Amino acid sequence: MMTSDKLRAMLALYLVTDERTDCDALLHIIRKALEGGVTTVQLRRKHDDGRQLVELGKAIRQMTTEFGALYIVNDRVDIAMLTDADGVHVGQSDIACADVRGLIGKRIIGVSTCTLAEATAADREGADYLGVGSVFPTSSKPDADMCEIQGLAGIARQVDIPVVGIGGITRQNAPEVMQAGAAGIAVVSAIMQAEDPSRASAELLRLVRTGR
Amino acid sequence: MMTSDKLRAMLALYLVTDERTDCDALLHIIRKALEGGVTTVQLRRKHDDGRQLVELGKAIRQMTTEFGALYIVNDRVDIAMLTDADGVHVGQSDIACADVRGLIGKRIIGVSTCTLAEATAADREGADYLGVGSVFPTSSKPDADMCEIQGLAGIARQVDIPVVGIGGITRQNAPEVMQAGAAGIAVVSAIMQAEDPSRASAELLRLVRTGR
Ligand code: NI
Repeated sequence: MMTSDKLRAMLALYLVTDERTDCDALLHIIRKALEGGVTTVQLRRKHDDGRQLVELGKAIRQMTTEFGALYIVNDRVDIAMLTDADGVHVGQSDIACADVRGLIGKRIIGVSTCTLAEATAADREGADYLGVGSVFPTSSKPDADMCEIQGLAGIARQVDIPVVGIGGITRQNAPEVMQAGAAGIAVVSAIMQAEDPSRASAELLRLVRTGR
Repeated sequence: MMTSDKLRAMLALYLVTDERTDCDALLHIIRKALEGGVTTVQLRRKHDDGRQLVELGKAIRQMTTEFGALYIVNDRVDIAMLTDADGVHVGQSDIACADVRGLIGKRIIGVSTCTLAEATAADREGADYLGVGSVFPTSSKPDADMCEIQGLAGIARQVDIPVVGIGGITRQNAPEVMQAGAAGIAVVSAIMQAEDPSRASAELLRLVRTGR
């Protein structure tokens, strides 16, 4: 298990995959993003079957290892175990944090939270970091609950574990998220839909490092 | 791990859950079905989140233990591990049999197959039983590939592990399935939508035992 400071640094620029059907294109963008400086990649695919997830996960494991980045799996602890992920990320309706811990031992557990109550509960239950959002409205998850910048700032002040802002984060508003006390930013569209994912990643990483 | 004969007996009447949103009603029907003689219950819910699956799985684990029935989880190996399932059932696009084995050790693995090639491959890869279908057209999975009675009979002749027929099985056609060499029958609607799930189960079990 890495130290909290090391984990905090590794959460600087956190890429979450989108749901595109073309998996070759997906992996190509992830490689470009890693070249640009992405520090963590989360495999999040709600509609893929297990075999597809294992295949994607193994490819992402290989690339993230090559670039010294973290590889996290959303929701599916079995896929995380099979593809040797660094950790698992769960939402409020996924497997409970304590149950995940029982399966994955010392690997990283991230928990999505929106309110301070959810955040302190996740911290108490042994989460290693929090994904907090949506900070801004987002097209990739239009029905997501909003916590806004003030909510993120409140959570970052109250919990000791690193907090990653997520939801509608762009080059324009990334500095605000960092000023609110985030350890890093998580994005989907800002990289996955960028014309140049490598350059977009490099620019976002620069803003994160400047904003700390 | 149980003997193959014991497993064969336990697969006689295999209930697969439906996708109804009312989980109390679901559990109520499962209890009635177990009272009627169901020997295996598979938790199969494609649209439930992890936390819901864990809750349902724990309830089914408790009931199946009470009635001496098997409890199998579809697709999600993590949920199977967390709820102490007797085994996991995977389809052709789910986690591969060998990968499942690596996670669950000696627990039971079932594999859905439609063709003889799929069936012999699953047998070779270490499956403990096969779910073979669809034997008949089915409303609960209208897009399922068909293997028909002849396909099931061919597979039952060629593989040594127990074969369970699935897909559109009713009181009327259950004897045909048993005559084709099945160890048992798997049903959704025939029990889940029965007016009296307990009586429907008892009648199906009688047909299976007569047909062996
Ligand atoms: Ni869906």
